[in-house]
This record gives sequence, structure tokens and C-alpha cells, in this order.
Amino acid sequence: MPESLAGARPTLEAVAARAGVSRATASRVVNGGAGVRPPLVEKVTRAVEELGYVPNHAARTLVTRRTGAVAVIIAEPEIRIFSDPFFSQQIRGISKELTAHDTQLVLLLLEGPGDYDRIARYLAGGHVDGALAFSLHTDDPIPAITRRAGIPAVYGGRPNWSEPAEHRTVPYVDADNRGGARAAVRYLEDLGRRRIAHIAGPRDQTSATDRLDGYRDVLPDADPALIAEGAFTAASGERAMAELLERCPDLDAVFAANDLMASGALRVLKERGRAVPGDVALVGFDDMDAIAEGTDPPLTTVRQDIEGQGRLMARLLLRGLDHERAGAPAPDPVITATTLVRRASA
Amino acid sequence: MPESLAGARPTLEAVAARAGVSRATASRVVNGGAGVRPPLVEKVTRAVEELGYVPNHAARTLVTRRTGAVAVIIAEPEIRIFSDPFFSQQIRGISKELTAHDTQLVLLLLEGPGDYDRIARYLAGGHVDGALAFSLHTDDPIPAITRRAGIPAVYGGRPNWSEPAEHRTVPYVDADNRGGARAAVRYLEDLGRRRIAHIAGPRDQTSATDRLDGYRDVLPDADPALIAEGAFTAASGERAMAELLERCPDLDAVFAANDLMASGALRVLKERGRAVPGDVALVGFDDMDAIAEGTDPPLTTVRQDIEGQGRLMARLLLRGLDHERAGAPAPDPVITATTLVRRASA
Repeated sequence: MPESLAGARPTLEAVAARAGVSRATASRVVNGGAGVRPPLVEKVTRAVEELGYVPNHAARTLVTRRTGAVAVIIAEPEIRIFSDPFFSQQIRGISKELTAHDTQLVLLLLEGPGDYDRIARYLAGGHVDGALAFSLHTDDPIPAITRRAGIPAVYGGRPNWSEPAEHRTVPYVDADNRGGARAAVRYLEDLGRRRIAHIAGPRDQTSATDRLDGYRDVLPDADPALIAEGAFTAASGERAMAELLERCPDLDAVFAANDLMASGALRVLKERGRAVPGDVALVGFDDMDAIAEGTDPPLTTVRQDIEGQGRLMARLLLRGLDHERAGAPAPDPVITATTLVRRASA
Repeated sequence: MPESLAGARPTLEAVAARAGVSRATASRVVNGGAGVRPPLVEKVTRAVEELGYVPNHAARTLVTRRTGAVAVIIAEPEIRIFSDPFFSQQIRGISKELTAHDTQLVLLLLEGPGDYDRIARYLAGGHVDGALAFSLHTDDPIPAITRRAGIPAVYGGRPNWSEPAEHRTVPYVDADNRGGARAAVRYLEDLGRRRIAHIAGPRDQTSATDRLDGYRDVLPDADPALIAEGAFTAASGERAMAELLERCPDLDAVFAANDLMASGALRVLKERGRAVPGDVALVGFDDMDAIAEGTDPPLTTVRQDIEGQGRLMARLLLRGLDHERAGAPAPDPVITATTLVRRASA
């Protein structure tokens, strides 16, 4: 892709002309957009994208004292990031949004908990303007790390702590996990299923506990033997399904807290000769591109817009960077809707 | 993973004691290892890893003027990085090696050629000590970008330029692509195949042209109609296979330049009723974890150690950072061996 370095660069004047605004307005938008009316911001942003305008970094840094880069941290070992399509979809949304705002995505990879000190040093070193973090676990150190580094952060999924404490309100983007789970379990009930099992995610993540709460909202008196815990991976879905069949051979439906675990459960159900959906109806969560439509039968599942959540996280952070300068408060959490997608598995 | 922030940190004295060296030697190794004999470097490195020692960043920065971070740049759009397991395997090797040397992996994602200017700014901004780049294309701007940024870089795969020029010698790690291809084609010949087709990779990457050269080494007079070009993706392997069957319905073997294209070719061969290996013997390249053993029949393929190449790239760069201070020349290229792995497809 060598073309980018050759050829004349579009100027800020060209951007202003195309957007129909003054050079000063175009400059303000390119450097963050504070104090410019949203319709003008949009016009200039569109002109920037159409012309492929690249602001002069030295000039911009002087005005904004920014690096033009945002860190993305996934609180999972590197190996899970590349094997679970959830992460690539979220990164895709973030990457598109940051690129549209000429901001560099810096993905900080880690192997294990011992690597957080190094990440803390990098964030404190002034190498990024802000951070986006997701897949946090209970009492995750990342919020404290970003606070100490003095940079704003937006989280994917609601962070949670084992004890209430101060400074724990942080901006985040999350799906309506509890509402989505309720819809899934109600749907199984409406199909006439009476022994509905749940394969939950790890209890140290709110996406898992919220979905479990949704299951319990609909079935407050459910037999505890009908609930098994997995780790959001296909292999853990297989193990949980085998456990459930052992404990409750009469189960007639399963709601799995994500599609990967549902795909593992489906394999075990087939191996044990249980017809899906005939003997056991199965519902997942996520509507993951690479999984839900590819299983046999295809998965009925609760759809959440993962890429859209990534875009929203990036947008909130970029806005937060402007607010910070304008002295405005941090943005409120954003909860995105979920919808039940009916396919053949239930 | 919150444990990392609590608990007492191991000290440099503890590292020195465990390694059986002086504190001064331990310090020198922790800060880069220049001027310390390799066996001592190894002892201290092992003690650092065993104790989980984290050097005081401020102190280390003063001594070394380093950020403790290395950029990884893949010259492909973000979407291919997460869909082609080649990249995750190479990143895995890099991540392990950098983590073992307490260096932060900073993956710079890009959407397209227009993003190189932004990457150039980030690299020139002093946010990383060096760069590892792979999947470069002909006349790729990345070597010039790292040179202008004044940071050392090591490449995965031999970079190439359309015209010879100065300053084009760069350190790289590559597999013996040509030798591996020769072994694959000779093997097909030894099986008695007489119409051996080749699905080549994109001609702007040396891994593709080297494998094509290996094919031609064995079959200098091959019918040009037996060669089709793909793009290293499964879909492009399907298209190339369909073309080849159209042009040369009598072909009895196919050597595909990677496993992804071989898996696509296999699907088309089956659809058209050609038995593999009965009617058409098929050989791939890479021996990719998630692919080669999973096809039906499993793929005979040329194995290269992708994760190992990632580790080597990181090791060369870290050594280069030391050499730089010591005034030594850049390291020579490293070519790793390939081996033919025989499975059922040929």
C-alpha cells in the first residue's frame, strides 16, 4: 500500500472549502471540535474523510497536547483475543471509529496478570490520550491504572467491584444483558418447555451475572441443578452441557450465555443422541457472525450489536477528550438494545 | 486478574541473589544487557522470569532512555489480521518473547493505505523503542517510515522493491519458502503426478514469489495454464481452483501456496466430484493449526514454524536495541527451515 506516501496532501483550506465553513472552524474541528456546533462538526468530519485530510501533527500537538492515539486493552490473555470473534468484532468497531477521527488504535497485548504493571507504565508514560478496555473481571485493576495514569477511559461492559467504594463510577457501554436473557427464557417457556437449563458465563463478569439474573427473573424457582457455569469458550460449553445432562437428564431446553458455549453444548447434545430442537431447544447469546448461522441447526440467539458497541465506546471516549478540556462531566453509561433472532435450534 | 497490583514486588537484589551475580550485573542485564557475557544474561533473565521481577521504570528510563515498548505493524487491513490465523500465530510468538523481556507489545492497527501517515507520526513520536512489521508488499513504505522515525525494525518475510536502491538492506526473519515449495512439488512428482498445478499467492509478496520460484525450479517447463494467482485467502483459493479446472481439466495434482487457499481448492475439487487424493493430490503450505488437520482429508503441507519466527523477530529486535547502543551492525537475515508434513491429501 505505498500510494499513501506519494501525491499531494489535501490542505486544511481544501477541507474548509468543501465543508463550506471558515478555516478557523475547520481547524477547531480537526483539533477536537470543542465549541463547534454538531452540524458543522459533521460537515467538516465528512470533508476530512472524503478528502483523506491528514492534519499536521506538530501543529495539532501544539494546540491539543495530544498524541493522537488511543489504547485498547482487553483483560484476557492474548490467546483468547484471537480465538474469540467477540473481541475482533468489538475491535473492528473501535478501529473504524478511531480511523474516521484520524486517531491511532494501539492494542496493548498481555499474557497474564503479571503484565498489568507494564501496561500501567505504558499508560502513565504519555503515549496515548485515553484508553478503551473490555472484558473486565471483578475488582479489575484497569480502572485504577487509567486513573493513576491521568487519562480518560471508557469500558466495554459494566465494571464491578466486590465491595462498594468511592471513585467507582466510570463511563461504559453495555448491552441489555438482563433484558435479552429474559426474552430468551420467556421464548423457551412460550414454546412449552418446562425444564429450562442455563449455561452461565464466569461469575466474575457482569455480562454473565446479568444474563443469569435475567434467567432468574423469569424462573425464580428454577432447580439450582439446572444451572452450570462455563467460561464463555466452546470447550467450557461442552463440559457444562455434559454436567447438566448428568444432573438433569429430563431437561428440555438450554439457554447458554453466549454462542460459543451454545455451539459446544450443541456438539454434546448431538453426541448423546438428543435431537435439537426436538428433544432439547437451544438458545445462545451474541448472534456472532462466524458461529450462530454456521451451526447445524443454526442457533436461535439474542443479538447484540458488538461492532456498534465498539464504535460507541470510541465515540464516547473521543467526546470525553473534548469534554475534559471543556470541563464537562464524564458521559453516562450507554445501554444498547438486544433482540431475539429465531433460527432452527429453538 | 487483580493479584498483580497487590503483594510485595521482588527486588533487584533478590534477582541478583537468585542468579548468583552482583547487583551491578543484574542491573545491567535488566537495563539491556550490553557488555554482559551471554551465560550471565541468561541466568539473570531466568531469575527475572522466575521471580516475576518488574524493574522500576523511572530508573530504567533514565539509564536506557527507552519506553519499554515495541510496535507490531501488519501491512494488512484490520479485518484480515483477525481472520487469518497466520497473523495470530506470529503475534503469539512475538508476545511471548517480548513479555519474557518485560517489553510491552503495542499492536498498531490500520484500515487501509491512508493510515500509514498516522502510523508514521506515532512511530516518530517516541512512543516505542523499535518496530516489528510483517506481510509487507512490494515497495512497502514501512521500512522508510521506521528509518525516518529513527527506530530499529525487524521484518517478517523478506521485503522487496521494484527497483534496486540504496538503504534497502534490512534485518528480517523468513522461512525457506523456495526450498519448501521445491520439496512439495518433488513429492507430488514422486507420487507419479504429471500435471501439477500451482495456486500462487499475490505477486507483490516475496513469500508468494519465492514459492512460485520453487515450483518452477522443479518444473521449469510447466504449462503456464497450470499456474493461477490467489490472494492467500480461502475464497481466492476457490476461485483459482475453478479457473485451473476450466483451463486444465486433466490436472492430477495441486500445490497451493498456503493452507487457506488449499482449503478453498479442496472445497471446489469436492464440489466438482474430483476425489482427493485419488483424482487430484493436494499439498498446502504453512501447516496452520486451525486448518491443515481439520480438512477432510487432512492436508499434506509444508510446515513452517510461524510462532517461532515471531519469537525470532522479537529476539533480533531486542538484541538490535542493545547493539545500537554498542555500535554494532544490524543483524543478518535469518532463514528458518521448512519440512514436508504428509497427511491424507497427497
